[in-house]
Amino acid sequence: MTKKIAIDAMGGDYAPLEIVKGVELARDRYPELEFLLFGTESAVKPLVQNWERLTLIPTTEVIEMGDEPVKAMRRKKDSSMVQAALAVKDGRADALFSAGNTGALLSSAIFLVGRIKGVDRPALATALPSFGGAHDQFVFMDLGANAESKPAHLYQYGILGSFYASHVLGIADPTVRLLNNGAEEDKGDEVHKTAHLLMKDTTAFNFLGNIEARELLAGTADVVVADGFSGNAALKATEGTALMMLKQLKAAIMAAGVRGKLGGALLKPAFKTVQKQLDYNEAGGAVILGVKAPVVKTHGSAKAPAVANTMGQIKTMLDHQLVPDIETFIAAHKDELQAGKEALSTQVNG
Amino acid sequence: MTKKIAIDAMGGDYAPLEIVKGVELARDRYPELEFLLFGTESAVKPLVQNWERLTLIPTTEVIEMGDEPVKAMRRKKDSSMVQAALAVKDGRADALFSAGNTGALLSSAIFLVGRIKGVDRPALATALPSFGGAHDQFVFMDLGANAESKPAHLYQYGILGSFYASHVLGIADPTVRLLNNGAEEDKGDEVHKTAHLLMKDTTAFNFLGNIEARELLAGTADVVVADGFSGNAALKATEGTALMMLKQLKAAIMAAGVRGKLGGALLKPAFKTVQKQLDYNEAGGAVILGVKAPVVKTHGSAKAPAVANTMGQIKTMLDHQLVPDIETFIAAHKDELQAGKEALSTQVNG
Repeated sequence: MTKKIAIDAMGGDYAPLEIVKGVELARDRYPELEFLLFGTESAVKPLVQNWERLTLIPTTEVIEMGDEPVKAMRRKKDSSMVQAALAVKDGRADALFSAGNTGALLSSAIFLVGRIKGVDRPALATALPSFGGAHDQFVFMDLGANAESKPAHLYQYGILGSFYASHVLGIADPTVRLLNNGAEEDKGDEVHKTAHLLMKDTTAFNFLGNIEARELLAGTADVVVADGFSGNAALKATEGTALMMLKQLKAAIMAAGVRGKLGGALLKPAFKTVQKQLDYNEAGGAVILGVKAPVVKTHGSAKAPAVANTMGQIKTMLDHQLVPDIETFIAAHKDELQAGKEALSTQVNG
Repeated sequence: MTKKIAIDAMGGDYAPLEIVKGVELARDRYPELEFLLFGTESAVKPLVQNWERLTLIPTTEVIEMGDEPVKAMRRKKDSSMVQAALAVKDGRADALFSAGNTGALLSSAIFLVGRIKGVDRPALATALPSFGGAHDQFVFMDLGANAESKPAHLYQYGILGSFYASHVLGIADPTVRLLNNGAEEDKGDEVHKTAHLLMKDTTAFNFLGNIEARELLAGTADVVVADGFSGNAALKATEGTALMMLKQLKAAIMAAGVRGKLGGALLKPAFKTVQKQLDYNEAGGAVILGVKAPVVKTHGSAKAPAVANTMGQIKTMLDHQLVPDIETFIAAHKDELQAGKEALSTQVNG
């Protein structure tokens, strides 16, 4: 069955050109997808090569990277992002894509597309490379959608992340760990200690215990759950260190004269391999889990190939019924989730 | 003037051999230092080559890496670590060194050596490599001494870290940034927003604003202050990523056959340079700031050269009056610090 993706054509460093190019690549790659392009008519229309399965819905405003997210979403009602989100809300589209302002997309996802009933806090998840584990990727969340998290939120991330791992990464019975400042179950602040207790005896997912950030990429679990604040810190420290190491290696190679140049030339393919392994942005975007449709944010600097890959990722989410299956699970386990929260609050306060 | 360092000779993966060897190296390097070795007599005595400026104080217990920190400190009263801490408390030694259980050392530092009056929460700090900034190192804290931090604690870390940067790294008028999940001042959870407000107008240190973990090693400040939970996550993610990248590079080089081997051989010195730049453990240990004497924890896997370098670090702390200068500053600014806290609590709650 044909599925429609609502595209914010104006968000991102290279919008609308690379967005439109990426969507056309995806259109040619996935014959069962249709695309609704939301954007400024004069800017988008001239870029389209072929209108097959492509519809332009003209909008007059653009949410900028520096805009205050909630305000921008509320005030710029005719922006490409808000109109694309409203199309999903109204059922005119099945999923939402943007490379623009992350905070505004989060607000649009939560307030316009809407939370899944029973999910307290939608969160931002991404697949990261995993080295040495059973699979070559794992799900890491929350990347910073929520600066403050309660134990019950972290517990729900375990459910959402497990569904993403099984439905999108194709990992059967995914394992889950909690990012904490020690491996032992009594480690961490009150939020993480309590979250650990909630997760320990759950049947909702396959919990293996805590993990320290040092092991993040080491393949010890298929889903790593973090509070948004330290999850954001760990993700960005990982990115920053990887970039800095490549830079320092290049500098050391340049400083080594002819020897360095020759060695560098010989190892270029090896460097490329590692760089590619680390470039998780190529594989797709960050997903807002816990809302009523797939909403995906790709990197602001994404170019056409990354945009097209992200459409593939959205297609997998749609084909594999990610959102309906989460909705069904949460609805079926509603009483259990509620009882768990209450039992825990007695345990913690009593 | 001769200074005495109390050594926990039994803590660390290679204790007591590498600790004793490191102390002897340091004794030969620093003629003005004396060392009190606390440890099991039968284990330590046979290792000492030369007793010049070395005194063995026999102890009968050892705090193990897996021991519960506070309990171990309270119960193992005749352990090498507790006895070494008591020597500092009683004025028989000027500083404390251990490669053992970090939590137990923190407890010993806080409860036995004692907090500086006016410091609410001593914290763990280390110097990390800085790439691209004005200096080649910066101070990062809290590394995880406190799983829960209040804004006033983060503010105090700014003071403690600035003193460490000026007195030990030799950086005049050090700059300070707050690790947060965005550069703008309204970013973060309540703790970080409030901490930012406290720091913004302070005259106690030179605050430049927030920093994201991506920029941690990029040399944007001489001191980066973090809450212990996300500071720990950022540090460990940095370490884990650096180790993983080196491992992946080696694997890619090995997979590239003769070409890889030749390239790898040519670039060996360049790799060594980068590996050395990243190996901050070689430069010394993590310092517990905010207690009444220098207390330094070196890496559990530290060998003799790293142990000796750590003695040099302790010597600098003593020579440059780090602790007395912090005490004087905090005492002089007591009313101001208190007024700041009160004004802020009105501002936040009102």
